[in-house]
Amino acid sequence: MTVSESSASLIQAKQDQTKFDFMLKYYRNLIVDLVHNYKGGHGGGPNGMAAIGFALYKYVMKYNPENPSYFNRDRFILSNGHTCLFQYAFNHLVGYSHMTLEELKSYHSAEEESLCPGHPEIEHPAIEVTTGPLGQGIANAVGMAVASKNLAATYNREGFPVVDNTIFCMVGDACLQEGPALEAISFAGSMRLNNLVVTYDNNQISCDGSVDITNTEDINAKFIACNWNVIDVENGSMDICAIVQALEDAKLSDKPTLINIHTVIGLSTPWENTAAVHGADIGAANVLKFKETVGIEADKTFYIPDEMYKYFSDIKPKGQAYEAQWNQLITSYEAAYPELAAEFQIKIKGELPANWKDYIPTSFPNADTPSRKSGGLVLNPIAQHLNQFLVGTADLSPSVNMIWPGKVDFQDPKKETACGLNGDYTGRYIHYGIREHAMCAIANGIAAYNKGTFIPVTSTFFMFYLYAAPAVRMGALMNLKVIHVGTHDSIGTGEDGPTHQPIALANFYRALPNLYYIRPADSLETAGAYEVAIEAEGYSSIISESRQNLVQYPENSKRDAVKFGAYVFDDFNIPDAKKDLIIIGVGSEMCFAMGSAAILRSQGYNVRVVSFPCQRLFEQQSAEYRHSVLMRQQMIPTVVIEAYAPNGWERYATAGINMKTFGKSLPGMVCYDFFGYNKEKIATKVDAYLKQIKDTPSVVYEFQDLN
Amino acid sequence: MTVSESSASLIQAKQDQTKFDFMLKYYRNLIVDLVHNYKGGHGGGPNGMAAIGFALYKYVMKYNPENPSYFNRDRFILSNGHTCLFQYAFNHLVGYSHMTLEELKSYHSAEEESLCPGHPEIEHPAIEVTTGPLGQGIANAVGMAVASKNLAATYNREGFPVVDNTIFCMVGDACLQEGPALEAISFAGSMRLNNLVVTYDNNQISCDGSVDITNTEDINAKFIACNWNVIDVENGSMDICAIVQALEDAKLSDKPTLINIHTVIGLSTPWENTAAVHGADIGAANVLKFKETVGIEADKTFYIPDEMYKYFSDIKPKGQAYEAQWNQLITSYEAAYPELAAEFQIKIKGELPANWKDYIPTSFPNADTPSRKSGGLVLNPIAQHLNQFLVGTADLSPSVNMIWPGKVDFQDPKKETACGLNGDYTGRYIHYGIREHAMCAIANGIAAYNKGTFIPVTSTFFMFYLYAAPAVRMGALMNLKVIHVGTHDSIGTGEDGPTHQPIALANFYRALPNLYYIRPADSLETAGAYEVAIEAEGYSSIISESRQNLVQYPENSKRDAVKFGAYVFDDFNIPDAKKDLIIIGVGSEMCFAMGSAAILRSQGYNVRVVSFPCQRLFEQQSAEYRHSVLMRQQMIPTVVIEAYAPNGWERYATAGINMKTFGKSLPGMVCYDFFGYNKEKIATKVDAYLKQIKDTPSVVYEFQDLN
Repeated sequence: MTVSESSASLIQAKQDQTKFDFMLKYYRNLIVDLVHNYKGGHGGGPNGMAAIGFALYKYVMKYNPENPSYFNRDRFILSNGHTCLFQYAFNHLVGYSHMTLEELKSYHSAEEESLCPGHPEIEHPAIEVTTGPLGQGIANAVGMAVASKNLAATYNREGFPVVDNTIFCMVGDACLQEGPALEAISFAGSMRLNNLVVTYDNNQISCDGSVDITNTEDINAKFIACNWNVIDVENGSMDICAIVQALEDAKLSDKPTLINIHTVIGLSTPWENTAAVHGADIGAANVLKFKETVGIEADKTFYIPDEMYKYFSDIKPKGQAYEAQWNQLITSYEAAYPELAAEFQIKIKGELPANWKDYIPTSFPNADTPSRKSGGLVLNPIAQHLNQFLVGTADLSPSVNMIWPGKVDFQDPKKETACGLNGDYTGRYIHYGIREHAMCAIANGIAAYNKGTFIPVTSTFFMFYLYAAPAVRMGALMNLKVIHVGTHDSIGTGEDGPTHQPIALANFYRALPNLYYIRPADSLETAGAYEVAIEAEGYSSIISESRQNLVQYPENSKRDAVKFGAYVFDDFNIPDAKKDLIIIGVGSEMCFAMGSAAILRSQGYNVRVVSFPCQRLFEQQSAEYRHSVLMRQQMIPTVVIEAYAPNGWERYATAGINMKTFGKSLPGMVCYDFFGYNKEKIATKVDAYLKQIKDTPSVVYEFQDLN
Repeated sequence: MTVSESSASLIQAKQDQTKFDFMLKYYRNLIVDLVHNYKGGHGGGPNGMAAIGFALYKYVMKYNPENPSYFNRDRFILSNGHTCLFQYAFNHLVGYSHMTLEELKSYHSAEEESLCPGHPEIEHPAIEVTTGPLGQGIANAVGMAVASKNLAATYNREGFPVVDNTIFCMVGDACLQEGPALEAISFAGSMRLNNLVVTYDNNQISCDGSVDITNTEDINAKFIACNWNVIDVENGSMDICAIVQALEDAKLSDKPTLINIHTVIGLSTPWENTAAVHGADIGAANVLKFKETVGIEADKTFYIPDEMYKYFSDIKPKGQAYEAQWNQLITSYEAAYPELAAEFQIKIKGELPANWKDYIPTSFPNADTPSRKSGGLVLNPIAQHLNQFLVGTADLSPSVNMIWPGKVDFQDPKKETACGLNGDYTGRYIHYGIREHAMCAIANGIAAYNKGTFIPVTSTFFMFYLYAAPAVRMGALMNLKVIHVGTHDSIGTGEDGPTHQPIALANFYRALPNLYYIRPADSLETAGAYEVAIEAEGYSSIISESRQNLVQYPENSKRDAVKFGAYVFDDFNIPDAKKDLIIIGVGSEMCFAMGSAAILRSQGYNVRVVSFPCQRLFEQQSAEYRHSVLMRQQMIPTVVIEAYAPNGWERYATAGINMKTFGKSLPGMVCYDFFGYNKEKIATKVDAYLKQIKDTPSVVYEFQDLN
């Protein structure tokens, strides 16, 4: 008998074996009824995955329905989020109090307060992450495995496994075709995250039909090539014991495990094993046929037999016992390791120490500095001292400047490599590889593990946050505090050319809810940007940094004003006089704003320069504050200078020096000049614009692209 | 002796073997000098890849330097685009007339007209696609292989292989970590694209150091699992013969081939085999040390020995012979198959028949229709009759409505599958799988194969064009005519909830140069949208379609006005009177614009409704036209109604009913109502807004979010 064969869960499952047909058919009956109830939704998957759910929820997973956020719980992530009924139904059966049968019936309904939306949402109890866009969930699960590994390596001591949970993740055929999943799988294998178990609902059906229309790969061999452990389960629609054994085996592996579970989508319905059953109600007649096939009376709608509730009735006491046991462990841990335990409690609470801002330098060199360097000066001391920070990069360590003295890599300590590696699982610097999308999705998982325990920081060139955009968006949607550091912003990045020069990307992130896109103009503003990002509860942030040197404005720049989004940068000592012109400078283009403003002032114009690091923050200020900065209702000619597409600046400016084409491969300052970013050229254009308004005042009402 | 051993190229390479040390060292010397010249750029890769280049450019690839666009040429795609010097240097050596030694020296310089930008650009001769963002190029190469396979299957006849070229693609360690590449690899294997040969510059070094820091997978096993043929070359830095043999073997495979070529980055420089040599000048002292190591005099800068030019002097005549031979083949093909040959010539020219618009219906049902259905009514007859169209979907055939009568799938005809497949390589409907990113990058490759030969059409939910955004952007940057069909746009998509409801995505695409994002309001506008997209030379397009039924406006909607971007939709029969209000309706939200306008008119306001399907098209109109529609300089209160983020509408409107949060899982119309999209609610808000302006006229100068 192997270790897994002697596991309590498998022994119990074997004892229960005679009940399985009954349990499975009533579970499937419930799914069929719920989808038919609102004539839509995704029932085929939950039906096919039923046995996997029994194995997980009844026998293997450790969790407590009385306390969905019990810290050491196993995590379950439904990467194929459209099958959410699977999870909702089990959450009902195991006794989560919020998930009543009535609540289940609100699936796909017009009920505004439903806890059963079309995809799982993190705001609801017993849901770890919001999923739906395929491939995200499995990458989130990898992030959770990273978080758990790091906590375990940092806080566990002999006899005190204070963190020893397992991350379970369900995927379907689709998730395993998506790029971010493939990146995350490769990463997880390379980091040997053996606390991660992926159950693959292998039904070989997707929307277009049989999966082999588009995918004929040997998925097991592919995972093995990626350093995963792979276990097959043949009769995955019914054989709960085999799934339990596979799950227990997986927990003993020294690698992450894929359990390839062969299932039948829409089992026992007339549409079984077809694409049709994936995302539609099977219709009244077929519902009846299903009931007939499995042997359930036609009138048994939303029917959950008492035996079923009884069968699951051990889950609550077991969950309470898990938590009680863990609480006891923590108590003795506190006695044995008081300092470590105190630190661990802070991590659980998700708080930063009150003095965290003390690590931010209060002044910076006056010499021209790239803001990617300023970013390092600000963040690295914080990351060095506060182990909440898990900082990583998509293979751009030499470029993004986020290495602190003595940083340790998050690494498999057993890895045998060609070159010396510095790291183990206590490490907090993550080499994500050239996998921007997975990086950000993994970071979401780290942040969602227990809100506040970790503040993940990702980094790459700003342009490549387009690769990662679906994950950045999901982080924002989930209100996760993740900080993304995008260096080499603007055309000022130079020679790499138009492929690397972002033109429209900031427009997306400025429009994205729950996200701060912050472009600091110099080191002081960079410090302010990190402060905002670190304090931003419910927001993800992108800090946008320059490759090239930036002029420093110690007289103008206000670290504490970044949080207002925009502020008066320079009034040239005549603050109260009527302005002829406002110039908005943004990020690395501030030098052109200040330079052209000085020329225009010398020509007699009364100019104000506004620094505008973050539109969303500015929108969150009072109308009074906003009026005090831009005086918008007075329609003072206002010119924004930014080497991005203008779209959206029209709210704040009447004209712009912006980009309406892609960039060009030229050295940074030459590239700027090529596109008209040159203080003299700008001053000339703005002067002409002001004269045009003098002649035809109505011109100011229509946004003018001056470039 | 195997077939490949008897190949002319390998025989020739073996005869040349004694020259290789000499050739390789002078090639590497040139690279070192060019990078040192401007103190930057990427020299390590081209240095390491030198032998691969000799194998390809001298022995294996069929191309004609006198005519870079010779139709049946082998294609070469440099997916690791940062190593562009590799390609530039070979293009010089083999005799492309544009690539002089002086031109080579413009690499990374301030030279505006340089043909040697920091990454390869499609606008330049002998460059097939613009590359740089990693993982794109290999997916483009897959697209070229699709294009070539389709042409070959359609036009080749026994004895007339009019299309029989090979697609070669170079990748580095980084490309093989990127999600879109992994998706494309899986697709290529499943489609058995054996005309694709990928040479992998396996130097195991990336920016952060040794690749095994982040990636320890067995790459060969992974490709084999994906149905690829894999060949290893051990001494890939020097052993040109082994590479030639591998390339010839690859051409004989019945699968796509990965040649895993083990190389040393920055060979013979003091920084060889380190990350440092990847993206930087090695410095003057190290340049001298390199020359000393390989045995080149210190003063031999930019030195190309005559022997080297002589060595490559056969390439031009060989290239001319290839083309002449092919021209001859075409002549006899024209005699044997006159009709087919005529059609083939049209494909080569990249033209559509003059009457293509005749396939578009001139009228549509008046009943409410989802625009995803209208899209099918418009596109499918065109795709059915014109074999320029290669239409595909990321596993959403049942949703996107792009199946025409008798459509044949693009498929490996030898595939043995679980379910019956309909297809072969002549098929023009591509099941891309759940691989949105690769889909769009593959489509770029199809479009770039020979501009105009194919018009690729992709499709998925609009939200998932965020996954594909880096590829859509590259298509726009390359001015490729690719049509992307994004269905289920807006919160009107309903129950799937916030994960599937796009809020900020349109803002990105509206800001992206060279792209038309078109949101038609009904069937007539949908017809206009496809017309624009099909005629849009130099532009990619996204046509944004609704899941839900849309009201049809046969009296107002103008198919022929879509090309203006915006137009007067309804003036309520009083066109010339002074307007109190303009309401802008967009796409599926037009019903709210028309509904609230009717209410406001009944309240005595003189209202104009403007339909605004495409901002970029509107920007391209004359100032006169734009003024005639929006009268912007008169500052008439103008309210845009769109269930997206407002950012950018401020250019055209003074207020908006827009989304500033993520959406919600509710049935479509309930979801609309939840967020205030309801004609009565809107009319009330707009009325209040107009009254506010009456009291305080300056309110109109500041964009108001009315939602």
